[in-house]
Amino acid sequence: MKNTFGNAITLTLFGESHGQAIGAVLDGIAPGLEVNLDYIKEKLALRRPSGTISTARVEGDEFEIVSGVFNGYTTGTPLTLLIKNTNTISGDYLDFKDLPRPSHADYTANCKYHGYQDYRGGGHFSGRLTAAIVGACAILQYALEKAGIIIGTHICNMQNIKDSDFTDYTQVANMRNRQFPTITEEAEKQMKELIESVAKEGDSVGGILETCVLGVPVGLGEPWFDTLDGMLSHALFSIPAVKAVEFGAGVTFNYLTGSKANDQFVTDGKTVFTKGNSNGGINGGISNGMPLIFRCTVKPTPSIYKEQDTVRLSTMQAEKLQIKGRHDPAIIHRARAVVDAMTAFVIADMLTVRFGTDTMAEAINSIKNAKKN
Amino acid sequence: MKNTFGNAITLTLFGESHGQAIGAVLDGIAPGLEVNLDYIKEKLALRRPSGTISTARVEGDEFEIVSGVFNGYTTGTPLTLLIKNTNTISGDYLDFKDLPRPSHADYTANCKYHGYQDYRGGGHFSGRLTAAIVGACAILQYALEKAGIIIGTHICNMQNIKDSDFTDYTQVANMRNRQFPTITEEAEKQMKELIESVAKEGDSVGGILETCVLGVPVGLGEPWFDTLDGMLSHALFSIPAVKAVEFGAGVTFNYLTGSKANDQFVTDGKTVFTKGNSNGGINGGISNGMPLIFRCTVKPTPSIYKEQDTVRLSTMQAEKLQIKGRHDPAIIHRARAVVDAMTAFVIADMLTVRFGTDTMAEAINSIKNAKKN
Amino acid sequence: MKNTFGNAITLTLFGESHGQAIGAVLDGIAPGLEVNLDYIKEKLALRRPSGTISTARVEGDEFEIVSGVFNGYTTGTPLTLLIKNTNTISGDYLDFKDLPRPSHADYTANCKYHGYQDYRGGGHFSGRLTAAIVGACAILQYALEKAGIIIGTHICNMQNIKDSDFTDYTQVANMRNRQFPTITEEAEKQMKELIESVAKEGDSVGGILETCVLGVPVGLGEPWFDTLDGMLSHALFSIPAVKAVEFGAGVTFNYLTGSKANDQFVTDGKTVFTKGNSNGGINGGISNGMPLIFRCTVKPTPSIYKEQDTVRLSTMQAEKLQIKGRHDPAIIHRARAVVDAMTAFVIADMLTVRFGTDTMAEAINSIKNAKKN
Amino acid sequence: MKNTFGNAITLTLFGESHGQAIGAVLDGIAPGLEVNLDYIKEKLALRRPSGTISTARVEGDEFEIVSGVFNGYTTGTPLTLLIKNTNTISGDYLDFKDLPRPSHADYTANCKYHGYQDYRGGGHFSGRLTAAIVGACAILQYALEKAGIIIGTHICNMQNIKDSDFTDYTQVANMRNRQFPTITEEAEKQMKELIESVAKEGDSVGGILETCVLGVPVGLGEPWFDTLDGMLSHALFSIPAVKAVEFGAGVTFNYLTGSKANDQFVTDGKTVFTKGNSNGGINGGISNGMPLIFRCTVKPTPSIYKEQDTVRLSTMQAEKLQIKGRHDPAIIHRARAVVDAMTAFVIADMLTVRFGTDTMAEAINSIKNAKKN
Repeated sequence: MKNTFGNAITLTLFGESHGQAIGAVLDGIAPGLEVNLDYIKEKLALRRPSGTISTARVEGDEFEIVSGVFNGYTTGTPLTLLIKNTNTISGDYLDFKDLPRPSHADYTANCKYHGYQDYRGGGHFSGRLTAAIVGACAILQYALEKAGIIIGTHICNMQNIKDSDFTDYTQVANMRNRQFPTITEEAEKQMKELIESVAKEGDSVGGILETCVLGVPVGLGEPWFDTLDGMLSHALFSIPAVKAVEFGAGVTFNYLTGSKANDQFVTDGKTVFTKGNSNGGINGGISNGMPLIFRCTVKPTPSIYKEQDTVRLSTMQAEKLQIKGRHDPAIIHRARAVVDAMTAFVIADMLTVRFGTDTMAEAINSIKNAKKN
Repeated sequence: MKNTFGNAITLTLFGESHGQAIGAVLDGIAPGLEVNLDYIKEKLALRRPSGTISTARVEGDEFEIVSGVFNGYTTGTPLTLLIKNTNTISGDYLDFKDLPRPSHADYTANCKYHGYQDYRGGGHFSGRLTAAIVGACAILQYALEKAGIIIGTHICNMQNIKDSDFTDYTQVANMRNRQFPTITEEAEKQMKELIESVAKEGDSVGGILETCVLGVPVGLGEPWFDTLDGMLSHALFSIPAVKAVEFGAGVTFNYLTGSKANDQFVTDGKTVFTKGNSNGGINGGISNGMPLIFRCTVKPTPSIYKEQDTVRLSTMQAEKLQIKGRHDPAIIHRARAVVDAMTAFVIADMLTVRFGTDTMAEAINSIKNAKKN
Repeated sequence: MKNTFGNAITLTLFGESHGQAIGAVLDGIAPGLEVNLDYIKEKLALRRPSGTISTARVEGDEFEIVSGVFNGYTTGTPLTLLIKNTNTISGDYLDFKDLPRPSHADYTANCKYHGYQDYRGGGHFSGRLTAAIVGACAILQYALEKAGIIIGTHICNMQNIKDSDFTDYTQVANMRNRQFPTITEEAEKQMKELIESVAKEGDSVGGILETCVLGVPVGLGEPWFDTLDGMLSHALFSIPAVKAVEFGAGVTFNYLTGSKANDQFVTDGKTVFTKGNSNGGINGGISNGMPLIFRCTVKPTPSIYKEQDTVRLSTMQAEKLQIKGRHDPAIIHRARAVVDAMTAFVIADMLTVRFGTDTMAEAINSIKNAKKN
Repeated sequence: MKNTFGNAITLTLFGESHGQAIGAVLDGIAPGLEVNLDYIKEKLALRRPSGTISTARVEGDEFEIVSGVFNGYTTGTPLTLLIKNTNTISGDYLDFKDLPRPSHADYTANCKYHGYQDYRGGGHFSGRLTAAIVGACAILQYALEKAGIIIGTHICNMQNIKDSDFTDYTQVANMRNRQFPTITEEAEKQMKELIESVAKEGDSVGGILETCVLGVPVGLGEPWFDTLDGMLSHALFSIPAVKAVEFGAGVTFNYLTGSKANDQFVTDGKTVFTKGNSNGGINGGISNGMPLIFRCTVKPTPSIYKEQDTVRLSTMQAEKLQIKGRHDPAIIHRARAVVDAMTAFVIADMLTVRFGTDTMAEAINSIKNAKKN
């Protein structure tokens, strides 16, 4: 029942979809980090549903920071971000305790919490909680950006539609401005058409997100267990619907021999680089200074309008379920904001392990200096 | 620098490939678990190199349990397993501090530890440390087996060679007896031929491991962060060479719509099952009682005999590297034992979170009872 | 910067005295514990200032539980209790960043947070945050009481005034009803007179709290580091003003020989007891089934009206400080509620380590059964 | 069952008194700290029994560092120190499982571990394990000394015998050379006579240790829970026989008013000091730059030769117990080395939280710089 993650910095997530509020506590942040409210709003906007490819439930996501910020800067004490739940139509969900939705957490939550869980709208398991993650971690992401660490994520695959690969810095940085994050407009157009098409059939679709992080200094991660890939995957698999995480060449390593897969070292006389980046910027669990590259497969939204089989738990009899309410035919573009947020969290946490929590100035300088090494 | 993993039970890993010893401390285990030394040896044997498809360095892996076991049972206090290093030829590795091997941790370790690391044989990053993981976690795996929780892993893919899928309980349990773990003998034969063939060229090969765990009770895992998939992936990405982790349909969810991907609920009047198991036994981060299914992609061993580019760090000049010493053309079959060990650890840890550490009898009974619910 | 405490259950504390809100997140609680709002209010009332012996700032301490409770029971997901700050007069405190109050945290906070701290009213260091501790832990204390674990604390010493010792169960349980917790009315009368007398001189007074916990089962605590005394002292020294913690005979062990100090074992044929309880119910860091006894020395409130020396930090010049605002001449009677709360937390946490978090029913039964053993 | 302590640095303790070995793992230490074996031996010698005032069991305490050190410096990976048990006479202890010794952990261990504990010589609860603490933490203490942080502990009270108070730097530093740590030789003489006198009667004696730490930079500790006093007390109460911990004026705060107890601020124009040090160098849980002062009351050794009452657990019948074997009439002088070790650990851990684990040079410089602030 540990809803806390991180080492030097910790993130604690609380709330239920249809309770009073959701929120997050960030602890261990250096004092003196600037808190840019517009930047937080921008990140929350990227997570919010929009248009015909999303649910009709639109929350304003009006957040309050109730502790840990003073005069526009982090104080160094726990920062709590709170988002009140306003637009809740609980009636839509009332049966889900007894009639669990396939591939949702209704059934497992009921077993785990012995019926005491707040089942309305998925309760504590709802994707809605990711708004608090995005809001809180935006503070860290903003600090990282100022130190030259840029996170960008695009939808690289949706069924047979492929986006192009990241080829330069600008493309990574630009993802920040893309509500539907693809590098090419063609990919966006095709993917949206696909989403609208499955939506018409009452069905849903997933896809693959690819993240690139530029500017990560060498040396983040621990050799065993708290490796950079281990910590990132731990964070990423907490995002509802993520079912696979690959670093660098990922599953395609299966087809490579060592001589093809290895990233040989080269130099310009000042810095060590690798030819190729099959390892996605990580060697032995530790960042090697190359761009960090990973992919998350997002499963199709389990809430579909088609009739499905389920079991009435109180009587243990088979029953048909027709999900009503407001749902997304695809959440992959919204999940992107959460992937970015958790990535920012893990990097900020690991920088703090390495450089301490003493001052913002030192922390930010440490990052910049580290990159020079 | 946290080499400890777990919540209710913790695993701390220490040692260097060419130091005095490697070892592991397991803390938080229930008192009264039987410690079967033969079972531990059997698991260590599955990890050891063997024959023409492995390195010529063969360690006896003679382990000692120096604390936490009394009269053949766990005491409930920290259990320390120690393996002395005997067959070390450090001369083979002396240059790797200054001439880092591509895709190994030599370079990142040197940056992280500022030259103070024990670089001989990969030091603390060496795959050799996994022997301590396998030895210590075998104690947990043995207890799980007695409670009916069976872990089996096979090599499902090596380049274009595919093993068949698990189709019944016996196949999963049988993996315990397979030094080279495939379901069909045909797959074993072809894969071994492939390994020998790449070995002749001084090259290496990876592949994909698929794990099935039977008998996992419903309700293991926490909603955020310490999800069953998050904790498993965190553990699995610590295994050197693992570069992708997928649950259930994994990366192929990209091609599915929700109506195909969802695991609908059915019942026999007593228990809830799912039709299909795309989610690999996990809903909302929590086990749902179906077999747990996941896959790890293992990259080709980075130590190859082919000449490679690297950089002499002391002079920052390009240099050619020809790795000598004793290496594996494939480690995937050996990595299997580590995947099983870490899986046993995560499940035992989560069972302890749920049922407490008070007594073995209660713990084991809890597992059995939990399965009835 | 870790504002989280506990193992199986965790308590995270956030907020600043004059910020928007203070609050606490309790995570890891078993689902199905009854949440009695009146009981929480009662505990908060014991912590609130009252009458002539307290500060004139009276907060309503109107709390909201914004997550983790559903239909009157804990859900098993993080429980967040929020108390908004309403009655704040920040002007009173404005100089304390530059002119630190002696024996307060103003100076150390300024050094630690480099001037970014919210210094108003002591900010995150304010005793006000203990209201969130008391509110959240009351939920645990209520569950413990239902399982027969009773916590009672009295003021055993204030300067030369001594209260009588606990001699029976009723006295311990009765402390719940005493706003000013002494066993004898005579002690209350004398102590209140002393407080009023020092208050008139613009001064303050401390004292010693003695806590007795009845019904603690044998076996709580770990041998090293997370001993019952170690965890309790860690929790108790977090309470502002606590400067000494003693178990059983405490500092008077200095005057005893082993033959006097040892608690010899006796039996009624069913249970093992000790003659005497010098060890305060703890042997080897683990509860032994006897009443748990410990004392906390509370220093005099550092806010006094007498003129004091301080240093203007911006100019590094000596300056006289005359504290204004609303302050307590004694806080020992209010601190009592926090001691009880942290004690309830530690015991509930240790019970959860031992018995797991699976269900309230099991947890409560476990406690009762454990006492039978 | 968590035998691990610390945040940025962790200490894991394992082993049993009469098992194969005891040991400790230190993780999270900065790479590049010098490991001075002679210094470690010196600290272990201070903990070892000696002469007529100690047990006749003398262990050589031959330690091995089996990981984490390379070429005389810490590597940054887990450091494991191992001490084999050699001089064990298990026969002495065989009855203690069924006939628990008063005020020892025999009974509580038996309840907690359900009879599976290694009961020989106190097993995992034995004071012998503190040798591993002292050995491992000596590495940290040595680094602190080089950075000007000096820890000294003396026996300030033994019954009515009082040592004089620390009055200067040299006295604190000198404690390092005192096998029986008192400031005056007169106190040593009287205390030793007392010990020998109680020893003749088959009895034992305790006392009070006072520790002074010079050179602690301002700003160590966290506001809630991981306060400097909270962490220290947690560590100190893990030392067998410690039953009270006081900071600064400690229990005597009961007799002070605020105007006497407050430490007013003064300055020399460069640094802020306090007049007096009632708070023992801690304000609001955070070091204030003044000497850190605390006292631990050590109870009389529970092993005495006088006949005592106990209960035969297998039959639940009263029985007389006459302890044989080798025991200390006083352990307070030996406990001193453990107090110093745990103090070094907590300070090193908190410095690492603040300044990160990146390099020894930076860490040490950080300490020195911090003191300038």
